[in-house]
Amino acid sequence: MSKKIVVIGGSAAGPKAAARARRLDQTAEIFMFQKCKELSMASCGFPYYVGGVFNDRNQLLAAPTGVTRDPTFFMNTKEIIAKVGYEVTKIDRKGKKVHWKEMETGKTGEQEYDKLIITTGSGAKIPPIPGKDLEGITTLVSIQDADFLRKIRDEKKIKKAIIIGGGLIGIETCEALELAGIEITIVELLPQILTFLDWEMAKLVENYLVKKGINVITNNGVAAFLGENGKLTGVKLQNGTELSCELAVVSIGVFPNSDIAKDAGLEIGPNRGIKINEFMQTSDPDIYAAGDCTEIPQLITGKTVHAPYGDLANLEGRVAGENVIKGNTAKFPGTIQTGICKIFDYTAGATGLSERNAKTLGYDVETVINASPDKPGFMGAKLLISKLVVDKKDQRLLGYQCLGPGDVSKQIALAAMALLGKLKVNDLANLDLPYAPPFSLAIDHFIAGAHIMQNKLSGQMTGISAEEVWKKVNSEGEKPFILDARGPDEFEQMRLGIGEVLIPLGKLRKQMGDLPKDKNKEIIAFCKISLRGYEASLILKANGYTNVKVMEGGIMAWPYKREK
Amino acid sequence: MSKKIVVIGGSAAGPKAAARARRLDQTAEIFMFQKCKELSMASCGFPYYVGGVFNDRNQLLAAPTGVTRDPTFFMNTKEIIAKVGYEVTKIDRKGKKVHWKEMETGKTGEQEYDKLIITTGSGAKIPPIPGKDLEGITTLVSIQDADFLRKIRDEKKIKKAIIIGGGLIGIETCEALELAGIEITIVELLPQILTFLDWEMAKLVENYLVKKGINVITNNGVAAFLGENGKLTGVKLQNGTELSCELAVVSIGVFPNSDIAKDAGLEIGPNRGIKINEFMQTSDPDIYAAGDCTEIPQLITGKTVHAPYGDLANLEGRVAGENVIKGNTAKFPGTIQTGICKIFDYTAGATGLSERNAKTLGYDVETVINASPDKPGFMGAKLLISKLVVDKKDQRLLGYQCLGPGDVSKQIALAAMALLGKLKVNDLANLDLPYAPPFSLAIDHFIAGAHIMQNKLSGQMTGISAEEVWKKVNSEGEKPFILDARGPDEFEQMRLGIGEVLIPLGKLRKQMGDLPKDKNKEIIAFCKISLRGYEASLILKANGYTNVKVMEGGIMAWPYKREK
Repeated sequence: MSKKIVVIGGSAAGPKAAARARRLDQTAEIFMFQKCKELSMASCGFPYYVGGVFNDRNQLLAAPTGVTRDPTFFMNTKEIIAKVGYEVTKIDRKGKKVHWKEMETGKTGEQEYDKLIITTGSGAKIPPIPGKDLEGITTLVSIQDADFLRKIRDEKKIKKAIIIGGGLIGIETCEALELAGIEITIVELLPQILTFLDWEMAKLVENYLVKKGINVITNNGVAAFLGENGKLTGVKLQNGTELSCELAVVSIGVFPNSDIAKDAGLEIGPNRGIKINEFMQTSDPDIYAAGDCTEIPQLITGKTVHAPYGDLANLEGRVAGENVIKGNTAKFPGTIQTGICKIFDYTAGATGLSERNAKTLGYDVETVINASPDKPGFMGAKLLISKLVVDKKDQRLLGYQCLGPGDVSKQIALAAMALLGKLKVNDLANLDLPYAPPFSLAIDHFIAGAHIMQNKLSGQMTGISAEEVWKKVNSEGEKPFILDARGPDEFEQMRLGIGEVLIPLGKLRKQMGDLPKDKNKEIIAFCKISLRGYEASLILKANGYTNVKVMEGGIMAWPYKREK
Repeated sequence: MSKKIVVIGGSAAGPKAAARARRLDQTAEIFMFQKCKELSMASCGFPYYVGGVFNDRNQLLAAPTGVTRDPTFFMNTKEIIAKVGYEVTKIDRKGKKVHWKEMETGKTGEQEYDKLIITTGSGAKIPPIPGKDLEGITTLVSIQDADFLRKIRDEKKIKKAIIIGGGLIGIETCEALELAGIEITIVELLPQILTFLDWEMAKLVENYLVKKGINVITNNGVAAFLGENGKLTGVKLQNGTELSCELAVVSIGVFPNSDIAKDAGLEIGPNRGIKINEFMQTSDPDIYAAGDCTEIPQLITGKTVHAPYGDLANLEGRVAGENVIKGNTAKFPGTIQTGICKIFDYTAGATGLSERNAKTLGYDVETVINASPDKPGFMGAKLLISKLVVDKKDQRLLGYQCLGPGDVSKQIALAAMALLGKLKVNDLANLDLPYAPPFSLAIDHFIAGAHIMQNKLSGQMTGISAEEVWKKVNSEGEKPFILDARGPDEFEQMRLGIGEVLIPLGKLRKQMGDLPKDKNKEIIAFCKISLRGYEASLILKANGYTNVKVMEGGIMAWPYKREK
């Protein structure tokens, strides 16, 4: 007798699970219930549709061949019965059936299953504050949200928008609306945007956004939405400031849609996600779950996390789809929380643990900031700034962040593979990567970061962060001697203006007299990216200076205002 | 007393070794002897200078700040005594000194060392055939070669050129000269160009070159250079064909410059490279070697290979430079032979073992050809075609090849990391990579390849290569039934024309009557990339067909002529 497979949800994990089940069993009856009318939406593409990177809405819904992935497509190519506009209201575990309701008609019914897969996704968090139902407030989670924002883009009536929450979706939305000519302010409750980055890295992205004309307000939340005649006219911030706007996009995060599972008595994890094992199986052996409605193991910490990423949803769906047919033959190991986003001509990404997270978890870490180009100057080099986080105990990579106009995607991919392969600093220092001038430097940016880390771990280089330097410069105490090792022409073009003294590296050996007499004086050396700063520090140490540090990443990674 | 370090060679490994030694020891006396006048040349950038990607020759010789890396630069910034125009003629191991000769004056002398580093690089192979000294024959190894070819480009007098050898340098030179408007023929002795690829992959690159107007002749070598008045006028091929040309670029490979080491009695490896241990130390504990003059372990096979790559030269130099100062603290593990090259708007790369190499080495392998885009259609998808080679015994990745207009560099980087991390197919199937629509599909091309491999290894999919299909179609025996599962519009636009029958996937279940009555008949299914071909194969199997195969990579990976 043919197996009955029921899938609740038809966005990402659901269709993938259903398709995988079909491929492994041509005789199964496969039902897929989807509350909205659309199936297999490329929801990660919404910001690009809103921003006008492409204009054909059907591309969000179409297979690569151009055919819309509607119920007919699912029936003809995969013999999957896709019920769109159907909500599953209840799971009857004892009866092994689900109760459904057709949204338009209100008609209800039941569908039996042998195996059930829950892929109900996530919902957008909305702050419970006054005015939240005013017209002009939206999220960017559903295709309806995308349609709403696209219309705003096309009508060109709205002048000012507030984006609440500076996470991945907020930042992507920001680019989309900016392309529509709307003046944008990002309001973020935390001290920084993009919390997958550490503060000093996020600040560099923030500086870039500001340069692109975006207003960024951190350390401040929205206390109330203000309106007239039911329409949004502004927001009031927690510090009392009022900002006028006609549009507010709420992107403060998502939560797992796990209520239906909870109501059915399935185990729920500490992050509100459906609890699953390595087979994507819930606490009921006949029920699987995949995608944003679950929580999954973080591979570095071993704890479970809510990881609402489209790529993982697909991989999890594939595993669940296999296991409902073949009986727990496939495993999904978990996540290292890899994320990336494009912001105009800039990219920011991260994988593994940030320094902040690693420290919170009790790791004793060493970090490196590495600012250097992605390829040779003659091939059109673009800057990359990255941060490595390493466990001091065993020198294993714990996390990696990278940003800039350069090829960030490859850097994050390398780091993700290093984390998954459990590679250590010495492994990363001698990688055999694809090298040719159009693609990288002879020593790839990623490898260069490992070299700096080796130098720090061995005591060959003593690093200091821009943040610490800034604190020292702005404190009451004795100031360090700050040495800029660049050339005079570079100094003229751009400089920090924190009291630094210019001594070009090439002249340093002859100009030792210009340095402090006190050999124990704290000296901080830097240059554009702090390679010359590093070489300067070695010369100073060899000349008897005992307290010499290198400001990591140099001017390129300086997150504060520069004099010039 | 300060240590005396002598480095022979100043191109890539040499300057890196010298700089690393200096950073670790500010008091050492460091000498670097370089036969030609230039130091630290970006030799991998020569083809791009010849092609006019950039015009400032100094960029090949300058630090990122724009300063030329000449002896003054090395003295001022690194206190390294760089002797340019000096040939080291002999190593006196007993006396611990080298004999040198100044090229211009003929003056000779000696330099003592405590530790010696040999970084003499590689030389271009020249076929020992008649006419090899004619004017108009060159290699592209030295900066003098680059100057010669750049002049040819700028003068625009030469109309026809022959490139002898279709390896990495030959292909890069081909693009450079084509940009100069020269008609180009590549002559390759072997049955294929780019031997780091398997035949069917190399053939796709060849087809692309032909489309770009390049003539490609394989399975044929140059028997003689023809000339008049000492100038090249053409070449005679081994099959007797004569081709006229005014320029011939010989790029049939390089050999390690190890004679000086051999003459000094140092051990030489089976590939003519200087034998070194994991510390880059030769058979004389006071002598190290790095770069193209050495041979190094292949990490997958354990055998040593000559791996003349600029990135490895730098990494090896860094290790040697550390060890001469600190005494064997740093290790260089070896290579997986990762290579990549750009060819117009196409990239081709490989890492690890090709199928051919793996089989020669006795591995029992499974392979996959994966043709699929690098990102969503709405973000400007570009095609990637890749090949995975896996050890059937333990399902470990052995090698990876990738080509196409898409982001090949990231794919090869991922594969290199997978090889270094010793990852297996099931690991690769669930990677947590950086996903956002500007950078990849929700299921990255690399992961999709692993999914296909899982399907093949589990027997879920039976693959057949385009090569095998071509043989079947062109043989005398009974022909297979060939099923194209695309849509009629696609069939009109493009088709193989090998007797295939069009049955769109969506109609297959209803059109089973159009299939052979004999359920044991061999059926080969495909589509554009063979995803629908795969789904069709599953339907056929479920309908009782016992001998159904999927032509891997579909039309996109078909290396032969198409009807349309």
